[in-house]
Amino acid sequence: MIDIEVLHRVAATLAERKKADPDSSYVSSLYAKGTDAICKKVAEEAAETIMAAKDKDMLHVVWEVTDLWFHSLVLLTHFGLSVDDVLAEFRRREGVSGIDEKKSRTVS
Amino acid sequence: MIDIEVLHRVAATLAERKKADPDSSYVSSLYAKGTDAICKKVAEEAAETIMAAKDKDMLHVVWEVTDLWFHSLVLLTHFGLSVDDVLAEFRRREGVSGIDEKKSRTVS
Amino acid sequence: MIDIEVLHRVAATLAERKKADPDSSYVSSLYAKGTDAICKKVAEEAAETIMAAKDKDMLHVVWEVTDLWFHSLVLLTHFGLSVDDVLAEFRRREGVSGIDEKKSRTVS
Amino acid sequence: MIDIEVLHRVAATLAERKKADPDSSYVSSLYAKGTDAICKKVAEEAAETIMAAKDKDMLHVVWEVTDLWFHSLVLLTHFGLSVDDVLAEFRRREGVSGIDEKKSRTVS
Repeated sequence: MIDIEVLHRVAATLAERKKADPDSSYVSSLYAKGTDAICKKVAEEAAETIMAAKDKDMLHVVWEVTDLWFHSLVLLTHFGLSVDDVLAEFRRREGVSGIDEKKSRTVS
Repeated sequence: MIDIEVLHRVAATLAERKKADPDSSYVSSLYAKGTDAICKKVAEEAAETIMAAKDKDMLHVVWEVTDLWFHSLVLLTHFGLSVDDVLAEFRRREGVSGIDEKKSRTVS
Repeated sequence: MIDIEVLHRVAATLAERKKADPDSSYVSSLYAKGTDAICKKVAEEAAETIMAAKDKDMLHVVWEVTDLWFHSLVLLTHFGLSVDDVLAEFRRREGVSGIDEKKSRTVS
Repeated sequence: MIDIEVLHRVAATLAERKKADPDSSYVSSLYAKGTDAICKKVAEEAAETIMAAKDKDMLHVVWEVTDLWFHSLVLLTHFGLSVDDVLAEFRRREGVSGIDEKKSRTVS
């Protein structure tokens, strides 16, 4: 099984980059640009994931989902949140089936 | 630190649901509908993540990123891939800075 | 040349529906649900346009672009704007090349 | 009423740019990059439309919807289609209510 702790290492790096000079890294520059720039990247990576899926290009799908998760983590860190908040939400949902989950929302 | 193994448990459940009756769960019905239906959900959850971010509604951001990751995992499983492929890609990128990563691509 | 006035007739209908009962039509129900619901439709139709393009299914591309424009018009009408505001912006840009247009923005 | 023929002038320009040198304009370079690059722009402009709507920034909404329509037109032209195909589809739908329209599809 793959070393899952990589997500915590990525999260730690992303938290550090928040304090760094905007010019020091791609992620630091993204924080400096703000919420809209980060959201735009999330939208872009979602679109690229979809295009890779339509191409049935498996390597590309993995690449784009990684980009999508990476930029989601940047967004979370931007707001002072972390991968642990997402993992906690996944845990909260354990034992709740998708259909029940869907029913439990006012808007799907 | 939050139990990170939840992602492997989710992945295992998603793999099981692939063999199940399409009517038995939300995820099974999504596999049956196929790639476009799953991709549409990825796009929707990305849009909802962006709207939650614009609202600065932290709880909602966590919820929507979880939904986004969940549907990314459904897409991966649909193609016979798994969370381990994404984690392996994250590991591959360790030590490569975002700026170098960006430069290493033909298209950013 | 196709009757281009159809866009003004659609705009007029969309404006009327704003005053109608939420249960009286699809569009009236969308106004009642509010900005997020309309934005979600814009995101969905953009994703479906992309998937149709990847399928190289021309009929489907036309269908989805029409849906995308339609829901953009719903969004404009929701905010008291109209197709005329978009046409005026297109006119403003006439004579400005895309490259100059791009340079004139702080963010592309 | 605003001069609606601007859409046909834009369409004519976009058709001309298809024959031009890729370096001669933003649009010519976009055609040369191909379907994925154009689709990525459609996704980006949809995301920016949503963010402008969330900001309730009316000027920005008009700007982004114009960008979204513009890049939809680039996509149509890329496939040998035109604004007339979208206008024809809008005309086809006249007299069909949104709710009936929705019911007439296999997938909404």
